[in-house]
Amino acid sequence: MQGVRLLMTSEMFLSGYHIGADAVRNCAQAADGVMAKRIAEIAKTYELAILYGYPEYANNELFNSIQVIDSNGTRLGNYRKTHLFGDVDREVFTPGDEATVIVEIEGWRIGLLICYDLEFPENARRLALAGVDLIAVPTALMHPYEFVPRQMVATRGFENCVFVAYANCCGSEKDFDYCGLSCVVGPDGVDIARSATNEGLIYAELDRVLLQRWRRTNTYLSDRRPALYCTNSQPEAVSDDST
Amino acid sequence: MQGVRLLMTSEMFLSGYHIGADAVRNCAQAADGVMAKRIAEIAKTYELAILYGYPEYANNELFNSIQVIDSNGTRLGNYRKTHLFGDVDREVFTPGDEATVIVEIEGWRIGLLICYDLEFPENARRLALAGVDLIAVPTALMHPYEFVPRQMVATRGFENCVFVAYANCCGSEKDFDYCGLSCVVGPDGVDIARSATNEGLIYAELDRVLLQRWRRTNTYLSDRRPALYCTNSQPEAVSDDST
Repeated sequence: MQGVRLLMTSEMFLSGYHIGADAVRNCAQAADGVMAKRIAEIAKTYELAILYGYPEYANNELFNSIQVIDSNGTRLGNYRKTHLFGDVDREVFTPGDEATVIVEIEGWRIGLLICYDLEFPENARRLALAGVDLIAVPTALMHPYEFVPRQMVATRGFENCVFVAYANCCGSEKDFDYCGLSCVVGPDGVDIARSATNEGLIYAELDRVLLQRWRRTNTYLSDRRPALYCTNSQPEAVSDDST
Repeated sequence: MQGVRLLMTSEMFLSGYHIGADAVRNCAQAADGVMAKRIAEIAKTYELAILYGYPEYANNELFNSIQVIDSNGTRLGNYRKTHLFGDVDREVFTPGDEATVIVEIEGWRIGLLICYDLEFPENARRLALAGVDLIAVPTALMHPYEFVPRQMVATRGFENCVFVAYANCCGSEKDFDYCGLSCVVGPDGVDIARSATNEGLIYAELDRVLLQRWRRTNTYLSDRRPALYCTNSQPEAVSDDST
């Protein structure tokens, strides 16, 4: 891992994801708890920042969270999954309400999302509008949703002129078969690194010149017409015809 | 064309797209002008609806428009491109301000967009929230933007649980090399039909059962959290750091 500046894990990496509500409760800790202190030690020892997924306990509630700890052991940011997925999330977790969490590492502004959050274009867009360079997405995506790492992740990068790093689980937990395919894509929609469906560690170097060049020619963010999008943020705009 | 109920053309089909401002002005007509009457005759003769692209003249302005005329020759809807692309659009056209234009054909609700409009996730989302089943997109997309028909079009269908039909030009006009790859994708992100990069006519049948099944399991629209998206529709949210 020589030279790596940010190590990213999958969603709920410290505990496992589809392990049942009781097991999650037993593993959950505060964002500054014992597990965070151990991660901070590892970060300092290996001189890299670590973004990891874990079950967070706070104010008598459980959150599906990720946290970034830098190479000095400092907690830079904590994000709670805002868009819960199915029973596996909803039976256990409270949705987070702080949608925009951005950390900065060596001049790179990094926006945080978790798994299902990225599948809503609104979330990546909000981070891009807030000026991030990279959206980092720990995930626990299972079969048959391979469409997401195969097509959607690149689209998020392309349409927002950002890098996207998507770190997935592999193997299985109960009836979930995780599909791997972790990837880092550029603002041009091209893979910088991609894993297969089995276990692996991928490395990617982000090119700031590519990002700047792409943003000069691909002007999605400045070509937006926000006045036309107002209905998109009103609950009553949701169609009741989901036949 | 026996049995076809809706024929779709590419953007600016009646005149050509990259033909220069003077030529566009010379070709432009009112939405109920002579060209519309000729299209209506063709629609009645062949008993199909026609969605076609043309330069529209209205109130001393030019719009990059599309119009749907049904098999009775009735004008069902007219849409003016809201997101203009580069000099080719901006030197000639006024952007449309009516963002949500929906027509209904035989029980199918069809939302209209043109080319660059689809590249903004907000536009497809707005139509999905308004209850469309299909987003129909005449386009004139050129090299090197193959990413759009190869990955983004499917993502729009998948993330919104709608069909997307994307009808592109091929060949070239001046310095534009159109990239073809016209396609119809399902709400599962899978191609129903796709053309190569050269000239061709593709056919697709839309399956309402697939749409209903997909919407039951893929609950993006009802899982949205509009309160978290408010900043996305505010102009001041745009970052000024487009380094």
